[in-house]
Amino acid sequence: MTATIHPQLTILAPGLLGGSVARAARLHGAAQRIVVWARRPASRLALSQQPWCDGVANTPEDAVRQASLVVIAAPVDKIVPLIQQIAPALPPGSLVTDVGSVKGEISRLGAAAVAPHAHFVGAHPMAGSEKTGWEHGMAELFQKRTCFITPLAETAPHAIAAIAAFWSQLGAQVVAVAPDEHDRIVAHISHLPQVIASNLCAALARENPTWRNFAGGGLRDTTRIAASDAQLWRSILEQNRDEVLGALGKFQAELAAFQTALAHRDYAAVVAQLERGKAYREQFLPAP
Amino acid sequence: MTATIHPQLTILAPGLLGGSVARAARLHGAAQRIVVWARRPASRLALSQQPWCDGVANTPEDAVRQASLVVIAAPVDKIVPLIQQIAPALPPGSLVTDVGSVKGEISRLGAAAVAPHAHFVGAHPMAGSEKTGWEHGMAELFQKRTCFITPLAETAPHAIAAIAAFWSQLGAQVVAVAPDEHDRIVAHISHLPQVIASNLCAALARENPTWRNFAGGGLRDTTRIAASDAQLWRSILEQNRDEVLGALGKFQAELAAFQTALAHRDYAAVVAQLERGKAYREQFLPAP
Repeated sequence: MTATIHPQLTILAPGLLGGSVARAARLHGAAQRIVVWARRPASRLALSQQPWCDGVANTPEDAVRQASLVVIAAPVDKIVPLIQQIAPALPPGSLVTDVGSVKGEISRLGAAAVAPHAHFVGAHPMAGSEKTGWEHGMAELFQKRTCFITPLAETAPHAIAAIAAFWSQLGAQVVAVAPDEHDRIVAHISHLPQVIASNLCAALARENPTWRNFAGGGLRDTTRIAASDAQLWRSILEQNRDEVLGALGKFQAELAAFQTALAHRDYAAVVAQLERGKAYREQFLPAP
Repeated sequence: MTATIHPQLTILAPGLLGGSVARAARLHGAAQRIVVWARRPASRLALSQQPWCDGVANTPEDAVRQASLVVIAAPVDKIVPLIQQIAPALPPGSLVTDVGSVKGEISRLGAAAVAPHAHFVGAHPMAGSEKTGWEHGMAELFQKRTCFITPLAETAPHAIAAIAAFWSQLGAQVVAVAPDEHDRIVAHISHLPQVIASNLCAALARENPTWRNFAGGGLRDTTRIAASDAQLWRSILEQNRDEVLGALGKFQAELAAFQTALAHRDYAAVVAQLERGKAYREQFLPAP
């Protein structure tokens, strides 16, 4: 992959991820000029004072007119409308990517919206935080993290290579998969854990909220992501509903079998299941 | 609570928690002399070379003969037998506590075994790690962590005060509750999260183990405790089976309601549940 310096990187609707893309791009010299657009005028004013921001535009269209690369950092339900809005203003040959957690619909509609004069290659960096807002962005957020890119069969190879090179430059480990395969993977390794953490917290809140004051490190870690933004997750779960329901059903079946084993004092089965979980967890790659 | 310096602290069967008790007691000057006993001769040899170990005994009885305070650090299924074994060798007026994660049976049988010449007050520090072994012990492990103590109605007040003072001296925040109440609390805030993490990992292992290589921080944190020792957890789940099944049933009901909401596209209910989880998690005390 060739690391190019983009003449102008434009970031639309930066939140935690967009703010991190800007900082990382500046740190690693991925762009000569970084331009942003945010919906709220107060955010635009604050963004104009950031060292990693060279220009702020008042409209998405103005923001992309000179861009060689555009990163759509909006919540998943706002990504396709934004791409459709900027499409006529995109320069010929420009590249568009995003950071959305669901990729099927976005990849197909995004590519269709910008064709044929520009190229869309969806992306999903497996990095984040329970915090929101570009103020919390970090240049190192993508370091050694997986970043999925989800080209279509018909995506131009040079566009795929350029988007892969960009995310690699920010420190991510790029993995290319088909959009639907991506959605199936993250339903299991990201969306299901979120659903579990949120529901565990909701169950504990119903039982006795003051018990949380006794929490050890196990409960803290297991539930950290439950503090994530509910509206962001609503959009993600809505867009990836079928896959999430599939993954959830498998987890429920696993839990039901465990419950049966424990209820029947079948401790051999209990231990076997604990051992399966342990073996899986112990083979995680070292934390970035 | 008055912090006394114990003439001799004896720690039986030290693992991660016992090794941490010894280091913390040395750091905070809680004991003049620290004596340990471990089952394996090789462990006794290695323990004798630790700076926080003043003496190693070859039998549990020998280890406690001069003790003013004994900490039983064995796995939960070994605690009562050890207390019964050392009871005749305990000096008059000596104190015995433990670190077991389940407290009902241990508190009752422990107190009965050492009475009337000695006093047992069960304890459960809400601290630990997915690691095991006294080699991984840390003097700071209990700092600002909850430590439950579970006296019985008939436990001598001076014994309760002394055990509370000891755990406070190690840095813990001591919370006294009845043994059965303790078991109900930890079934929810410790044992249920363990069951969930293990089963999530088991479900993901069944689906496609290689996906773990893409894991972001969410999956890492949510599943960290799944790497815990399976046999230790088998004993805990066995001793606290009824309470764990109760907590698990409530979680399953919560999850089933969420599944129904998502399946029926009732996104108001989905968001409400996510918000409930978020509100609960956001009010955790700051991490120690």
